[in-house]
Amino acid sequence: MSRNISGPEIERLIQYLGRIPGLGPRSARRAALQLIKKKEQLLVPLAQAITDAVNNIVICNNCGNIDTRDPCTICQDPKRDVSFLCVIEEVGDLWALERAGVVSGTYHVLGGTLSPLDGRGPEELNIASLIERAKDDSVKEVLLALNATVEGQSTAHFISEQLEDCNVKISRLAHGVPVGGELDYLDEGTLSAAIKSRKQI
Amino acid sequence: MSRNISGPEIERLIQYLGRIPGLGPRSARRAALQLIKKKEQLLVPLAQAITDAVNNIVICNNCGNIDTRDPCTICQDPKRDVSFLCVIEEVGDLWALERAGVVSGTYHVLGGTLSPLDGRGPEELNIASLIERAKDDSVKEVLLALNATVEGQSTAHFISEQLEDCNVKISRLAHGVPVGGELDYLDEGTLSAAIKSRKQI
Repeated sequence: MSRNISGPEIERLIQYLGRIPGLGPRSARRAALQLIKKKEQLLVPLAQAITDAVNNIVICNNCGNIDTRDPCTICQDPKRDVSFLCVIEEVGDLWALERAGVVSGTYHVLGGTLSPLDGRGPEELNIASLIERAKDDSVKEVLLALNATVEGQSTAHFISEQLEDCNVKISRLAHGVPVGGELDYLDEGTLSAAIKSRKQI
Repeated sequence: MSRNISGPEIERLIQYLGRIPGLGPRSARRAALQLIKKKEQLLVPLAQAITDAVNNIVICNNCGNIDTRDPCTICQDPKRDVSFLCVIEEVGDLWALERAGVVSGTYHVLGGTLSPLDGRGPEELNIASLIERAKDDSVKEVLLALNATVEGQSTAHFISEQLEDCNVKISRLAHGVPVGGELDYLDEGTLSAAIKSRKQI
């Protein structure tokens, strides 16, 4: 869009909407128009929601989760099983596991994976604080719920070595056929893992 | 996402991001995480851009365009040909035509099409102000650049009847094969129009 057809505020709105992951420049223009049209219902509350988030979001000092309180809601929850520590790469993984409601314990967010090529060593991740937590007597099991990628698995390997001196059980997620998945679409690695870990019925 | 895993500010951010056209609930969550991660580069400027837009956006009283000044930038532009009035349905159409840079005149935004079933009569659209503008002696031609849909075309028909008493030339966009289009994918109406309006080469 050329510069001279609407004010700089509208251009800037389109520009920053376009930086939202999932919106390109074209959909940002369409979104901006819709938001402006429904200014009171959409644009004003969105501005308020973003401002509130900016002012209140903190990183939990204990587990690395994103929340508006520190320690985060999960770390403060007395119903959580503190003997079970679930290690994940990113906060998005925590949200996914919480949606499934399958983790009774607390989390530890690494903030990514080791990647020597990108210059991400152990110091760049929340590994030291994980070891510190794992040393606590209350922790009995550390589940390394990292992605089943090369980076995720090598990071899991590194962490399990670091945890050797701690008196904890170390576990990883099971590999296999995703529930609802069709064999025809699965890769050889997954099929091989599913055969190896077959269960008697 | 269950209620108790992060603060209400984050939930609200996800909720309102999800109302942006083009973002669903799932992509809103992913977008929220990315925005929070890059708070200073993305979230803070986005909040500022939206607040500026909310505070500054006005509808041009002359043509119905969205801008931060009234009359809008286009209506104020002395280089525009005021004898040529391009009528469009929505501001998005104005932006599309401006991106193409093909309209030398000014615009008039109807704000939609006539739709008796949805209770949208002539009073709901900016038709009265269009007739008023067309009566001005400086206006020589009114181009009804409405969508080639049933609603667009019936609205164009209605407006052209209203404009009969004004001393202006009334025109519409040409129908035909879109540039870059393949005949195989075009509907019969388009092909028929393209044959009827064929040009000698």
